[in-house]
Amino acid sequence: MASEWFEHLKRDFVQGFPAFCGFEVVRADFGRFETCLEVRAEHRQQDGFVHAGVIATMADHTAGYASFTTTSENFRILTVEFKINYFKPATGPLIICRSKVINNGKRIKVAESEVFSVSDGAEKRVSKGMFTQIAVASEDLG
Amino acid sequence: MASEWFEHLKRDFVQGFPAFCGFEVVRADFGRFETCLEVRAEHRQQDGFVHAGVIATMADHTAGYASFTTTSENFRILTVEFKINYFKPATGPLIICRSKVINNGKRIKVAESEVFSVSDGAEKRVSKGMFTQIAVASEDLG
Amino acid sequence: MASEWFEHLKRDFVQGFPAFCGFEVVRADFGRFETCLEVRAEHRQQDGFVHAGVIATMADHTAGYASFTTTSENFRILTVEFKINYFKPATGPLIICRSKVINNGKRIKVAESEVFSVSDGAEKRVSKGMFTQIAVASEDLG
Amino acid sequence: MASEWFEHLKRDFVQGFPAFCGFEVVRADFGRFETCLEVRAEHRQQDGFVHAGVIATMADHTAGYASFTTTSENFRILTVEFKINYFKPATGPLIICRSKVINNGKRIKVAESEVFSVSDGAEKRVSKGMFTQIAVASEDLG
Repeated sequence: MASEWFEHLKRDFVQGFPAFCGFEVVRADFGRFETCLEVRAEHRQQDGFVHAGVIATMADHTAGYASFTTTSENFRILTVEFKINYFKPATGPLIICRSKVINNGKRIKVAESEVFSVSDGAEKRVSKGMFTQIAVASEDLG
Repeated sequence: MASEWFEHLKRDFVQGFPAFCGFEVVRADFGRFETCLEVRAEHRQQDGFVHAGVIATMADHTAGYASFTTTSENFRILTVEFKINYFKPATGPLIICRSKVINNGKRIKVAESEVFSVSDGAEKRVSKGMFTQIAVASEDLG
Repeated sequence: MASEWFEHLKRDFVQGFPAFCGFEVVRADFGRFETCLEVRAEHRQQDGFVHAGVIATMADHTAGYASFTTTSENFRILTVEFKINYFKPATGPLIICRSKVINNGKRIKVAESEVFSVSDGAEKRVSKGMFTQIAVASEDLG
Repeated sequence: MASEWFEHLKRDFVQGFPAFCGFEVVRADFGRFETCLEVRAEHRQQDGFVHAGVIATMADHTAGYASFTTTSENFRILTVEFKINYFKPATGPLIICRSKVINNGKRIKVAESEVFSVSDGAEKRVSKGMFTQIAVASEDLG
């Protein structure tokens, strides 16, 4: 069932580097994934803004799981490449990332992620990226 | 003196998110910066490979400091956007990133980063990215 | 008046390489621009599909004029960089491009373009790109 | 023989949109392709510079044929996505593009293109891009 697969992915999301960073899952649906991060000192760069790498990691990982929702356990999603733009510094205490699949090819998938800095309940879009991924048969990853 | 500026940047590099990730500086020169990372469990993704976000963060931050070497303390370097390709999974215990400025505009700078996974002394290029940055007068960042 | 500026841009769009390619303007509004192309033999590549370069040119030029709508005659828009994904081959007799500004900075602007292949009235999205542009004072271009 | 394949590709390069634009082949070798363009009025944009789309088309097509040199007639190369940076306006009477494959995967290939504006024999690098391509079996393209 789709909802079981989404629940599995919501748990699977938080491990390794994303767990280390502190990303949390908000919701998952077919072709969509949303995550958040409570910003701490270790997420910042030299000017006090959230580091571009934190935002890129969150945007990449959330986009990857958005694509995972369109597959089954027989496939792994790997990032082929991505491009991300930074619009303004992220300065708020909370970051939200919303990803969606915009081209759901059988093998090549393309997803977009938008990242928002949240202050006093107001969202400011700080970044947007496009991610090209490849769905690899689990057995081929060894 | 240039060498004092480079030494300052080598210390300045390791703070906030890059310090949290564990990146270390190898060397710095005009328009060039090299860093490394001892891979630990918290750097991996769900398949055991180094996470694309670790590599992107390292590539972005090292590219930023490559551009810093071409400026003075009167400027801050901010990432406008970047694009990064992943060639093969990074599986070795050590990661090296080498960045160089390929277009040193006064305001808009473009740098490249190449990331290598190192196993038994052999380097395998796993990723390459292009980074567009803007040099902002320090006083304008407030 | 805004509408005069938009009318000027609709005429200004069709010159040089875009005129040579045969692009036509459909409509213009603040932060938005739409164009079309009747596909001819000279727009194709070796497999009979519309060439990636035709699509990239249309997406870039339309994105540039979307950003022009947010400025005045005192500024020129130059492309700093862009990234574009191709989802499926464009095979129809008509191509439509819709661009919108997604971050309207004073100096750095980011726009998106979506390109559709149209057959029998049905649109198929074949490509999407993100464009980073810089607004330069006309007098600085000489 | 490889040299026959390269000679075939040098002829095959000039058709459809690239022929319409006027690109010419300079040389081909395994994983490398070089082309040139005599700049005419129809290649320019509204400020008199070579249009970003001309440069993107040349960079994409040359990168595609660089990858073709690594395959055989049984494969077609399609562009999955690319990213290109523009460093300075191209103002000279001649443009040269040099492409090379930087990751020669069996299915996914990554190539780079550098574009130079030539005036009075002096080359000025005006643009650089990274191209992700997929090698598709000829029979699968129908």
